Amino acid sequence: MTTIADRSTAELADLRAQARAAYDAFKARGLKLDMTRGKPAPEQLDLATGMLALPGNGDYTTAAGEDARNYGGQQGLPELRALFSHLIDAPADQIVVGGNSSLALMHDTIVWALLKGVPGSERPWSKEEEPVFLCPVPGYDRHFALCEEFGIRMIPVPMTGQGPDMDVVEAFVANPAVKGMWCVPKYANPSGEIFSDETVRRLAAMKTGAPDFRLFWDNAYAVHHLTPDRHPVRDILAACAEAGHPDRPFLYASTSKITLAGAGLAVFAGSPENTRWFLARSAKQTIGPDKLNQLRHVRFLRDAAGLQAHMDAHRALIAPKFAAVQEALERHLAGTGAARWTRPEGGYFITVEARAGTATEVVRLAKEAGIALTPAGATSPYGRDPQDSVLRLAPTFPSLGDVTKAAEGIALCILLASLEAEQGVRARNAA
Amino acid sequence: MTTIADRSTAELADLRAQARAAYDAFKARGLKLDMTRGKPAPEQLDLATGMLALPGNGDYTTAAGEDARNYGGQQGLPELRALFSHLIDAPADQIVVGGNSSLALMHDTIVWALLKGVPGSERPWSKEEEPVFLCPVPGYDRHFALCEEFGIRMIPVPMTGQGPDMDVVEAFVANPAVKGMWCVPKYANPSGEIFSDETVRRLAAMKTGAPDFRLFWDNAYAVHHLTPDRHPVRDILAACAEAGHPDRPFLYASTSKITLAGAGLAVFAGSPENTRWFLARSAKQTIGPDKLNQLRHVRFLRDAAGLQAHMDAHRALIAPKFAAVQEALERHLAGTGAARWTRPEGGYFITVEARAGTATEVVRLAKEAGIALTPAGATSPYGRDPQDSVLRLAPTFPSLGDVTKAAEGIALCILLASLEAEQGVRARNAA
Repeated sequence: MTTIADRSTAELADLRAQARAAYDAFKARGLKLDMTRGKPAPEQLDLATGMLALPGNGDYTTAAGEDARNYGGQQGLPELRALFSHLIDAPADQIVVGGNSSLALMHDTIVWALLKGVPGSERPWSKEEEPVFLCPVPGYDRHFALCEEFGIRMIPVPMTGQGPDMDVVEAFVANPAVKGMWCVPKYANPSGEIFSDETVRRLAAMKTGAPDFRLFWDNAYAVHHLTPDRHPVRDILAACAEAGHPDRPFLYASTSKITLAGAGLAVFAGSPENTRWFLARSAKQTIGPDKLNQLRHVRFLRDAAGLQAHMDAHRALIAPKFAAVQEALERHLAGTGAARWTRPEGGYFITVEARAGTATEVVRLAKEAGIALTPAGATSPYGRDPQDSVLRLAPTFPSLGDVTKAAEGIALCILLASLEAEQGVRARNAA
Repeated sequence: MTTIADRSTAELADLRAQARAAYDAFKARGLKLDMTRGKPAPEQLDLATGMLALPGNGDYTTAAGEDARNYGGQQGLPELRALFSHLIDAPADQIVVGGNSSLALMHDTIVWALLKGVPGSERPWSKEEEPVFLCPVPGYDRHFALCEEFGIRMIPVPMTGQGPDMDVVEAFVANPAVKGMWCVPKYANPSGEIFSDETVRRLAAMKTGAPDFRLFWDNAYAVHHLTPDRHPVRDILAACAEAGHPDRPFLYASTSKITLAGAGLAVFAGSPENTRWFLARSAKQTIGPDKLNQLRHVRFLRDAAGLQAHMDAHRALIAPKFAAVQEALERHLAGTGAARWTRPEGGYFITVEARAGTATEVVRLAKEAGIALTPAGATSPYGRDPQDSVLRLAPTFPSLGDVTKAAEGIALCILLASLEAEQGVRARNAA
């Protein structure tokens, strides 16, 4: 297939007319589709239906014989921490289970770092001139929003397909103002990348200017595979300890996309020192987590095998949705040069890199055709994508039928925007 | 009855020998009793047994027809906010339900005030020289611990029986460094006091030096009555609005001591402006609360009448425990001058004001006799009670039998410590 750039001007005009007609026909269907957020579909939530009546009357006693209904148990049930050890890749006694939102745990560690400092800090981060975080791009908009909320300056770092560009990272972290770095190590949001062993090794070993630098290791998709291949990521706690930087990583995970998005459990883990620090802070914040929801999770998931079987059931539901998007992108865009896109083996997103300068137009076209997309720029710090090219597609929530329709429409929008951009360039060059 | 101070030296020696014998006999029983924390008893938690299987299979749809299992619903279910309107004395649309811990909501508002400022702030509180909170004493140790954690200076304010001494409060709040004040307006922790209408009126109307001063209005015991008299407290939101200070109060409550201490719901309320501010902050922190636990509460409590009936059942369980403590204190201490104590009509505590300089000794004697008491000083900022006289008794958690025994032992300890202190004074005066 000939790329758009290689088409004659006449061919281009033809293709554009065809694409416009296809787009107009799509728009005329008057659909209303939403591909904005990485939310589980109702069918995925149905997999956890059994939880709605758990733990059940009379069942409130933990493995240690304690009453899960009362206050206390700040670190979370030991039997649950043992189960999550697999999920977050940390020993059970270095895990804290608290609340329903891992984002809230990231929020808490950041506000505590700002107001109190972390182990190794010379002063609270809010007393620094301007704390800085490295932000692999494309990344998770809510990570960036937290930084923006608290005045943490963000420096974008490109992704390579193996995780962040480590040459760039190593150069930036030599600056003592750089206090943190966002990492989604497996099936990254939104690129789907898996950090390679070498990336993890270099993140653990690199020399940082700040003695209290932290990796904010958001393992949001640890067990969220889209293929039978359950990709591992190198154990960051072990890697950092081996490199002589045991306190470098703060680990986060949750069951929001495992059990119930609104009623899951959030998990923190770190070195023994970081865990003590976290518990000392959270002891001032709360008299303990919802241990009945913890017990509910233990009763429902049972063990690592139970959790894995549950994730297999998720995969069966969502892998066809990802395939439908791939199919539509492939059919309309392959060989055109209008876009590149990821083929993730896990996680919740497909990232499309459209022709530079067209992402905003694609989102606009999609909206006119009844498809809500994440705003262009959302995957960059401050919502600014300098290339205006990245689109994040979230295919899990709509039904397979709706995803199939939406993907068709999105592919048409990408193609049309690219053809029009090329026409525009040629018109300007001719003028 | 003759007070200890009015006894002859010989009488004093006799009484002391009797008290010592009684104490030794108590100690010899080798009991192990705990009166430290305001925790509900297992029987109280049993009142909510029905919740353990709620909402139940297939029940996850909110009144608005939304799926409570998924992300979102940041402010909390409207039907729950309507129910809590009664509990926290605020319109439903000015209420936010989030998490299981009102302490965590206080923590969050404080860290946001420090890092961002509140509506009306000229700058974040952490940019002030040293933010100050007024702390009615005796007060709640976890309030004070939050201030200490974040470097907020605490100034104690005496309680009067009608709430804090408003002359003192009005004098201090003229200082612009004073940014906040802790208030437990009903059945205060631990004095059991109820803020009078006049106290509320003056708190609402007083002139503050800081334009962004906040009342941290922790209505922890709003419906926790110990008598058929359901004492009201004047509506602080309305009082502040009338006085031209609508944004002055931040309101907090929880169902920890209504439904399940570990698995309850926490509630924030404020003026429309404060509520918008709270939601803008929490939108960065979380993708939403556990709405299934919210639905569980709606299904279980049903409405204001259901909540009231539930609290009546609590009262039936705990009022006899409070009565047992009163009886023992009365029997051993009435007329001796060794102590004064509160007769609360709600809440979770009895406060004993022992002879100055004896509280630490009473706690030590109790410990030796197998009774764990809250450390002396716990009810003062920085854990320092300058009079060393205040003891906080928490009779709810142990069984009625254990409370009766513990109260007997505590009364003996108070009496013995007082007699020994009086002997010590006379010996020193004679020397």
